[in-house]
Amino acid sequence: MKPIKVGLLGLGTVGTGVVRIVEGNQEDLSSQVGSPIVIEKIAVKNTEKARNINVNSDKLTEDPWEVIRHPDIDVIVEVMGGVDQTKEYILEALERGKHIVTANKDLMALYGSEILAKAAEKRCDVYYEASVAGGIPIIRTLIEGFSSDRITKIMGIVNGTTNYILTKMSQEGVSYEEVLKEAQDLGYAEADPTSDVEGLDAARKMAILATLGFHTNVELRDVSVSGISSVTKEDISYARRLGYEMKLLGIAERQDDEITISVQPTMVKKQHPIASVNGVFNAVYVHGEAVGDTMFYGAGAGEMPTATSVVADLVSVIRNLKLGVSGLKAIAPYKEKRLISDEEIKYKYFILLHVDDKAGVLAQITQIFAEYNVSLASVVQQPNEFNPDAEIIIVTHDASKANMDKVQKHFESLDVIRKVKSVYRVEG
Amino acid sequence: MKPIKVGLLGLGTVGTGVVRIVEGNQEDLSSQVGSPIVIEKIAVKNTEKARNINVNSDKLTEDPWEVIRHPDIDVIVEVMGGVDQTKEYILEALERGKHIVTANKDLMALYGSEILAKAAEKRCDVYYEASVAGGIPIIRTLIEGFSSDRITKIMGIVNGTTNYILTKMSQEGVSYEEVLKEAQDLGYAEADPTSDVEGLDAARKMAILATLGFHTNVELRDVSVSGISSVTKEDISYARRLGYEMKLLGIAERQDDEITISVQPTMVKKQHPIASVNGVFNAVYVHGEAVGDTMFYGAGAGEMPTATSVVADLVSVIRNLKLGVSGLKAIAPYKEKRLISDEEIKYKYFILLHVDDKAGVLAQITQIFAEYNVSLASVVQQPNEFNPDAEIIIVTHDASKANMDKVQKHFESLDVIRKVKSVYRVEG
Repeated sequence: MKPIKVGLLGLGTVGTGVVRIVEGNQEDLSSQVGSPIVIEKIAVKNTEKARNINVNSDKLTEDPWEVIRHPDIDVIVEVMGGVDQTKEYILEALERGKHIVTANKDLMALYGSEILAKAAEKRCDVYYEASVAGGIPIIRTLIEGFSSDRITKIMGIVNGTTNYILTKMSQEGVSYEEVLKEAQDLGYAEADPTSDVEGLDAARKMAILATLGFHTNVELRDVSVSGISSVTKEDISYARRLGYEMKLLGIAERQDDEITISVQPTMVKKQHPIASVNGVFNAVYVHGEAVGDTMFYGAGAGEMPTATSVVADLVSVIRNLKLGVSGLKAIAPYKEKRLISDEEIKYKYFILLHVDDKAGVLAQITQIFAEYNVSLASVVQQPNEFNPDAEIIIVTHDASKANMDKVQKHFESLDVIRKVKSVYRVEG
Repeated sequence: MKPIKVGLLGLGTVGTGVVRIVEGNQEDLSSQVGSPIVIEKIAVKNTEKARNINVNSDKLTEDPWEVIRHPDIDVIVEVMGGVDQTKEYILEALERGKHIVTANKDLMALYGSEILAKAAEKRCDVYYEASVAGGIPIIRTLIEGFSSDRITKIMGIVNGTTNYILTKMSQEGVSYEEVLKEAQDLGYAEADPTSDVEGLDAARKMAILATLGFHTNVELRDVSVSGISSVTKEDISYARRLGYEMKLLGIAERQDDEITISVQPTMVKKQHPIASVNGVFNAVYVHGEAVGDTMFYGAGAGEMPTATSVVADLVSVIRNLKLGVSGLKAIAPYKEKRLISDEEIKYKYFILLHVDDKAGVLAQITQIFAEYNVSLASVVQQPNEFNPDAEIIIVTHDASKANMDKVQKHFESLDVIRKVKSVYRVEG
């Protein structure tokens, strides 16, 4: 059988895993696609660099164009990262009729629709399972497993770094700064952790998942984002005492034909299956009208898990190629995008207030909630452990952002409230 | 666009769900397959029966052959159940070039290879996602999501009835008989619950999953089975005190090129993600060499969750039909089946003994384990709560069945052992 020749852009962590799987599982892979798979050419930054894997040096090049323009290569596997320059490589590869497998969430979140349109035009495949939640086949699940259902909610722990940090803070009662430092030392967090800890990485992944789940073109700017850098160990301790775990959740919801997508630290009821997803693991919870609650759990990053998804995509792309159906299976988003206006977005809130410790304060505060039609699920007043104020901890029922903004605005004019210490979304 | 005509065999719980989804989600489904989907003819036992759904009475027939021989029907959806007669219907439908979607685990576990061979011969599709774990797209995940990986272990809670019973026993400390009665009253268990509680239903599903995961033809007789009817509330109470939950687990394992598949009540470490899957929910944990630990969770039965999988299969089958690739995507098992011999199967054991309450007994017993090379992870001796014996609770390290059989044989000749009360597999 004539081998299928593959070009690889990038030989970092994931690229190395791809080479390992393609070489190590060659027998199984050939059985699945009907011919050998050969990695023909690999673009790297520096051909001289020492590597964890033996690769014939003839295969290496420092010029990505050499891979993209290679006449024998049918499929390009892009695991180099980057956005603008990488987009140029991908578009040129598609122009030349090459199929694409990519693990690049930034690329797909920012330029996915442009790339997929070009692919459709050129009848090429673009597969990107590894771009979200590493080894968990969540993109296939949304496209095929739930093709029959109408999805109403996707909640994801899709960033391992922040889940590691929050898990450690929760289990060991240590501060954000301490754990971040440790995560950086262990290689779980980057030297500049902004993209992870401020929620941007998760937001990109949620844009990809929401696009697939809601059949509409969700862009990064549609996702409201806040990160975990201001979460304190006290916040987590309050969460646990009330029966919640603090998680950085991406949440995409649909109500009728309107959607909303956000990423924020969220207090999740301990009984919810996503609350017990700990450490660097990822999980995506999906609720469909017919299927109900489902959850998909696994490693969200790392050499081999991510490479598993990349090579599974490669198998699919090669099978399509052999069946002559490349580029014919993708379904472009077919629904108009209608975002729920900010004010109408409703959820439950946790609010921690520091107040004067005197009579009538609680009455004043609950009166404000009543005035703006925010009903309360639980209210606890207790002495503050650290200073002479009292603390009031409130969990609301579903409340609109518009009404909660009014409540908070009103709080500012209230002398008895010394500080609105924390406000979090609550789920489950 | 010319509609795709579908024939339905059965209009029970799942069949009703299929009609609801096909009618209710018609707009989305058409967007996915490119033409309307029409349920043209439905075979039922009794056309006069009152139903939960309005169906044009012209569509109903009491003769399945009328559906199978219908010239305009391209796809048969089989949700009637049954085995031998149903196999005849399916084989005849394939003979006539019709594609099949089935939710029938019994059929697929017993005659899957015969049906899939006929399908390959006739270039027809046979999809059966709904046959295992209801709404969880685990079959797609094994076939496509993990096509690149070598799976070493599949552990499934794949029977909702028994999981409901064990969860209730565990959470409420009640007996098997009490919960079974309640489950029957609630409709979670059949009047004759044998197939569920004795593990046969789970064994059929594990045969299907192991066939896909290990690429070899696993038959029902390859699965060793024991059910939950002899699990006592005391057993569960011991399990919990030691940090385990009792679950009916299907376990398929591969060691090098040998496999073993079993279903048995198993004590699972509480920290394992599958230990917290409760009630009628199902979950399948999959370990791959590259991807590591993953788990897939959702409703394992019920009208709408199961119908979600059936209609997702219908979408896939229709898309293949339109792309002209029907029957070309299935990969037949390509590996020789080599079962690990019974004696070589190794796992951890929990053993509860009732013994004479006198000096030297523990030494005698631990000596027997040592003699047969079974090393112990923990040993607890305590007074028996209910009678004058003492209890000894032992958890072993991995031990071969051969050695454990010898240990148990030796126990019989030991006067100080009054009773080997319970023996369970331990996981995690």
